Amino acid sequence: MPRPAFANWLSDTNDVTQIFLAAGQIPGLINMAGGLPDPSTWPIADLSALAANAISNHPKDALAYAPIEGLPSLRDTIAARFSAPGLHLHRDNVMITSGGMQALDLLGKVLLDDGSLIAAQSPAYLGALDAWRPRRPIYRPMHLHANDFDPEAAFQGAQFAYTVPNFSNPTGRLVGLDQRQALLSAAQTTGTWLIEDDPYGTLYYDSAPLPRMLSLSASNSPHEDTPYDGPVIYLGTLSKELAPGLRVGWVIAAPQMIRALVTAKQGSDMSTSGLSQRITQDAFAAGLTDRILPEILALYRARRDALCAAMTTHLADLFTWEIPAGGMFVWATARDPALNTDALLPEALAQGVCITPSSVFDPHGLNRRAIRINFTLNDPEKLTEGVRRLARAAKSCLIKAA
Amino acid sequence: MPRPAFANWLSDTNDVTQIFLAAGQIPGLINMAGGLPDPSTWPIADLSALAANAISNHPKDALAYAPIEGLPSLRDTIAARFSAPGLHLHRDNVMITSGGMQALDLLGKVLLDDGSLIAAQSPAYLGALDAWRPRRPIYRPMHLHANDFDPEAAFQGAQFAYTVPNFSNPTGRLVGLDQRQALLSAAQTTGTWLIEDDPYGTLYYDSAPLPRMLSLSASNSPHEDTPYDGPVIYLGTLSKELAPGLRVGWVIAAPQMIRALVTAKQGSDMSTSGLSQRITQDAFAAGLTDRILPEILALYRARRDALCAAMTTHLADLFTWEIPAGGMFVWATARDPALNTDALLPEALAQGVCITPSSVFDPHGLNRRAIRINFTLNDPEKLTEGVRRLARAAKSCLIKAA
Repeated sequence: MPRPAFANWLSDTNDVTQIFLAAGQIPGLINMAGGLPDPSTWPIADLSALAANAISNHPKDALAYAPIEGLPSLRDTIAARFSAPGLHLHRDNVMITSGGMQALDLLGKVLLDDGSLIAAQSPAYLGALDAWRPRRPIYRPMHLHANDFDPEAAFQGAQFAYTVPNFSNPTGRLVGLDQRQALLSAAQTTGTWLIEDDPYGTLYYDSAPLPRMLSLSASNSPHEDTPYDGPVIYLGTLSKELAPGLRVGWVIAAPQMIRALVTAKQGSDMSTSGLSQRITQDAFAAGLTDRILPEILALYRARRDALCAAMTTHLADLFTWEIPAGGMFVWATARDPALNTDALLPEALAQGVCITPSSVFDPHGLNRRAIRINFTLNDPEKLTEGVRRLARAAKSCLIKAA
Repeated sequence: MPRPAFANWLSDTNDVTQIFLAAGQIPGLINMAGGLPDPSTWPIADLSALAANAISNHPKDALAYAPIEGLPSLRDTIAARFSAPGLHLHRDNVMITSGGMQALDLLGKVLLDDGSLIAAQSPAYLGALDAWRPRRPIYRPMHLHANDFDPEAAFQGAQFAYTVPNFSNPTGRLVGLDQRQALLSAAQTTGTWLIEDDPYGTLYYDSAPLPRMLSLSASNSPHEDTPYDGPVIYLGTLSKELAPGLRVGWVIAAPQMIRALVTAKQGSDMSTSGLSQRITQDAFAAGLTDRILPEILALYRARRDALCAAMTTHLADLFTWEIPAGGMFVWATARDPALNTDALLPEALAQGVCITPSSVFDPHGLNRRAIRINFTLNDPEKLTEGVRRLARAAKSCLIKAA
């Protein structure tokens, strides 16, 4: 007898992950596709000691089921860390998640029915599209940098607006202060939830960080003894600040949203690893993330500069791009519309370099004009060689298209 | 402006978790409601050393994003551990999950559309109902121990059949060998997937374990070089064998099912903690779970016996039950239909004891005749005192009902 059919949404998924996985087997490949940190930034000895200490001295935190919403002490740590002048965050404003990715999954679960409307910064983070695909939502793309972008019109009727204001994945663009204010004001006017997904919030290479939209909405928590109750749903993650393998992230939002997310998390994975949570709490308390940040910034700044210099040398005829002021990616748009970046991927793999084509950041898979290039994982020599290979691949691709 | 409405399924959730959480604040409460292991069974020094070693000596396993499907070496370990005479499991048959709970969530994602049909052992594990609630499935209850139970009729048209053959949560009942064969045969005849959820598979107190349905379906992997391709989806977890706080579970199934689950996991939490996975692999390799099992069995066997003895003394007039041959729970059914166990819960809390009412194990919340009592968390003295309090609560409840 045939097996029952899989759920409908599974037929909508793209196969880019499979292509990337297979690419991992190519010897000598330079991987500029992912969003991976450099392992040399991990404070291995410190984390090893923190892990041993967490289990030996806090076994109930580390080894028991944690509360669904997270260890109370870690929630307090996050609330204190993200409070700002006028912004009084309470434990009830915080939930711990299994990486930043899980927050996107849980938000989909609590806010989307089949066919719900999402206003999403365009192009949009692939992981968010993956997380929400099971609900088959309708997307209203938001081109935040377009002259005529109207946040209120964009938010109207949407279950939530999704943004990555700091060095968006994939474009690396920074949303300015005025526009943060405008997005927030539109959320307050329309009532729509405003997701501020912020994995790259510490990775500013050229200037001091802009205020978070969460902080800008401090007027929604005017009293110290009242939890924040504004429209911003702030998502943070340890993956870029310390190490992704611990799978720790956090949501900061109004208590009613936290309660709904807790109900969804109960049926998703019950709780996040207590061991990872305890390590995170102790790492923050020891100032570990703050201690390693300057080194991370210096390393990634130099790599961004190396990548952009190599691109100027080898890719200026083929692509246009902006130098990102932070984050992990350069977004490059083909000058010639005949250069289909879906077709570029296999050519690039054949040349021994992997990048991410723009189609995967489009809910409808139609944008084939651009690529996302990561600069955090490889050293300057590899980045330069990767760009050389990419230039060869693009030229070969154009010849075939002609 | 009002906020957008939450997704429809959220209005269907029960509030039992909130009641239990609030109960945690009652001083002196004896908690016999959960399914928690006794922390004294955790090998703290061993786990602390394994955690430190995982980070120091295997930092890429422990601190990087793990592959979505899990660390290859851990998948191989699980495949070897669950292979059996005639059953050849390959790496492609195995996916690592963030606790057993996540496997249920992912199965719902890949197999359920809104209103899909599930054939579920009745009463059913609360966590499974929680996991599948966002898809609002239709349940066909399976009373496996009823004389006239017909597996083929039950499986017909269902996306999957859900069973906990070893000491079911909540009833503690064991599904016998004949019935395992019958369930498997019905799955093969109808084509339906057969979920074998097995968190309690090592907790046999009175006899040697029965063969898993996965092993009984070995004819679906007749050749050593071909992965298992049968209808059984086997779910395992480290939570009862070692410690729940690591949040590690595993799915063993046909490769096509593993591939679908990997797509769902990619959009759920990207990967399970590498640190937890590496600790798990090294714990299995060191024989840690096998070493601590005899102590766990002796401890829990004595507690089961103490609970059942106290129940015979104090509850025989009020409830009927079977002595479970394993697992973590006794299921007790009220003799008097006037004893509504939803009403019993607040009475029990007032007396200083917490149990789980049967309604939460019924997709429709209608079964109010039974309670689930846990015996693994408390020592015999506390179990006995808990039963005394429960008897007082039940009597008070009956007086109010009269």
